[in-house]
Amino acid sequence: MATLVNVPRARAVLQREGLDGAIGCTPENVYYLSGGLESTGFAISRYTTQVFAIVNAERPADPIIVSGLGDAGAILLVCPRQTRAIHYGTFFRYVDPEAKLDAHEIGIKARVVDTPAKANAFEGLLAGLEEARLTRGRVGYDEKGFDATHLPRLREKLPQLELVPAWATIRGIRAVKTDEEIRRLTATLRLTERAIQEAITVAAPGVTEEDLIREYRRAVVSGGGTPAINEITFGRRAAVGSLPRQNGVLKEGDIIRFDVGCKLDGYWSDIARLFAFRGEPPARIRGLYGAMVAGEEHAIRIMRPGITAREVFKATVAAVRAAGAPHYDRHHVGHAIGLEVYEVPLLGPGDETPLEAGMVFEVETPYYEIGFAGVQIEDTVIVREGGGEMITTLPRGIEPLA
Amino acid sequence: MATLVNVPRARAVLQREGLDGAIGCTPENVYYLSGGLESTGFAISRYTTQVFAIVNAERPADPIIVSGLGDAGAILLVCPRQTRAIHYGTFFRYVDPEAKLDAHEIGIKARVVDTPAKANAFEGLLAGLEEARLTRGRVGYDEKGFDATHLPRLREKLPQLELVPAWATIRGIRAVKTDEEIRRLTATLRLTERAIQEAITVAAPGVTEEDLIREYRRAVVSGGGTPAINEITFGRRAAVGSLPRQNGVLKEGDIIRFDVGCKLDGYWSDIARLFAFRGEPPARIRGLYGAMVAGEEHAIRIMRPGITAREVFKATVAAVRAAGAPHYDRHHVGHAIGLEVYEVPLLGPGDETPLEAGMVFEVETPYYEIGFAGVQIEDTVIVREGGGEMITTLPRGIEPLA
Repeated sequence: MATLVNVPRARAVLQREGLDGAIGCTPENVYYLSGGLESTGFAISRYTTQVFAIVNAERPADPIIVSGLGDAGAILLVCPRQTRAIHYGTFFRYVDPEAKLDAHEIGIKARVVDTPAKANAFEGLLAGLEEARLTRGRVGYDEKGFDATHLPRLREKLPQLELVPAWATIRGIRAVKTDEEIRRLTATLRLTERAIQEAITVAAPGVTEEDLIREYRRAVVSGGGTPAINEITFGRRAAVGSLPRQNGVLKEGDIIRFDVGCKLDGYWSDIARLFAFRGEPPARIRGLYGAMVAGEEHAIRIMRPGITAREVFKATVAAVRAAGAPHYDRHHVGHAIGLEVYEVPLLGPGDETPLEAGMVFEVETPYYEIGFAGVQIEDTVIVREGGGEMITTLPRGIEPLA
Repeated sequence: MATLVNVPRARAVLQREGLDGAIGCTPENVYYLSGGLESTGFAISRYTTQVFAIVNAERPADPIIVSGLGDAGAILLVCPRQTRAIHYGTFFRYVDPEAKLDAHEIGIKARVVDTPAKANAFEGLLAGLEEARLTRGRVGYDEKGFDATHLPRLREKLPQLELVPAWATIRGIRAVKTDEEIRRLTATLRLTERAIQEAITVAAPGVTEEDLIREYRRAVVSGGGTPAINEITFGRRAAVGSLPRQNGVLKEGDIIRFDVGCKLDGYWSDIARLFAFRGEPPARIRGLYGAMVAGEEHAIRIMRPGITAREVFKATVAAVRAAGAPHYDRHHVGHAIGLEVYEVPLLGPGDETPLEAGMVFEVETPYYEIGFAGVQIEDTVIVREGGGEMITTLPRGIEPLA
């Protein structure tokens, strides 16, 4: 029943954009504004599901949810207590007249059986805008999830309402994390670290990359998470990129590369580590890896509020070059993370966004050389007043595996 | 390296819609037209990733793929051999000049290092349309994934090209499955059945729904799948719908309800079964369940080519009523399945689509009574000339669990 919204930031961003309110429609923006709703509709019918989390700019942590009837139970359990839900459509549930209902059943019955649902998503949206006092003024809608056929109908019904695309605006609010979000990002990271440690226990001559991937995914699922990024490669196969079938076979002397992540309670992780399987890595790999780590650590040191994403990028590439990889180049050295794996800002050459305290990044300096190796480190970093705070706890060397 | 496309149907549907070709952009339409590409971009940055699978209506199984450089390796491995890939953007990979490269490394090097990439997705799209001989005429684009800012620029560059929204058209081609798709749907179903059987082995007094869900998900992951639908409930909790935290505790006499699915090699499953934990179910549950099964079996019998989805729906509800649940009503009794859980047609009151041989459905007759129970059966069914062919193999009763 926690809100996830950064209330002062939401107010400031909406005001800056001249918005009286916002309508989240993508799974991530709905999750954020609603306090954690994952609609069943998104899971089974992504393109035809309309869920709206409507907030007035004055009360951005106090959403009106518009959804199909199937989400009533989830809304009761995860959204803040005062959340008003408006349901639409048809879903038949019956009630045993002889049963003594518990509190949750009473809530479901009140919402799904006793309250007439709106005829369709559009009627629900109209009622939601009314409830949020947003029938006039300027309101941002999440164009990546919003059924565009609602627009002309809204213009007709609510001529004093101006709707403007605001997917990026809502996503921009999410860029500075609240304590609850950082708590969740940290929990996801801890699960990922445990899953890496479990996966490497199956390393043995002859096992395949798929064997480690399966173990990694089992560990994530066992901890309640959902695995999604699971790039685990052996030796020089790390250089060629993500492949659908990871059938490399482990042999002594291989470097095992993890670039893995998962999702837990809505929030993602994405980190990278190397392990040396039975044998000291060649000097050239050690040298290159040392340069990547030096660059990454430089990035983390300078990630203070005010520096731009582009400045971090340029300084990081320069630091890698100075530390022993003079030919190094990259298209980015990290990305914000949250309800999506890649959020804004991107630590790349084209992003002029100044960092702010409370942004959370994956900082990474990968190097891929076809025919030779892929070396990489990637860590989770919170921007603090004094510089980046790394919250990953796994050792940072090329860890020896016996 | 298999094509998934139903070539005669693709030609016929595109011709009927007056389309000279189509551009798939959503993950599912790209997967289908490309023969199995899962772009890394979709996994990490869904809303900003542009991948295009472009097909000329004359050669719908011969796609041109336009993607970022990170997908080069996957395209080499999964797409048909003759597939032409056009990459855009920046991704730095180096080449060890002293290494003897293997065939895959040579392919990656040729595409990622030696071939200059297009500057951006739009330039890649232009080149792809040219390669597919679709710079004029009428071409469908997948509006649910297509960056709308490309549209005015395409009008300017290719004034003789008419672009029309075609997400539903491409998805409609997918409605009649090929043998390869049925093979994959069957493999996913078999994994799901095994995972259900593994999950019930942990049933014991005091275990929670989460315990069974975790075991189900572990079994799916162990078999190489990705779990997604995992509604496992005890007793009357089955009546209130999908909940984010399944903390019900198992006790003797409970009915355990599974409504679960997963994804394997792109294709989904979604089936339902009941188990009676230590004790005969009450007569009223047995009676209701018998009515649901009778309705489902009636649906399967009549699912021949030519009958409409709506007719199946109406006859199914009538059969449930006649078999002992006279008050029964439902908003649908099944849905097509494939690269999405819910595809078209829907076995619901508003869908007039005639069934065709080779369509694959999940047929289901759920009944939810708050305070009492949720009873349900759901099976995977292929439409054949003589009626539906059920391919689920799990027993269909309320299975006793000791």
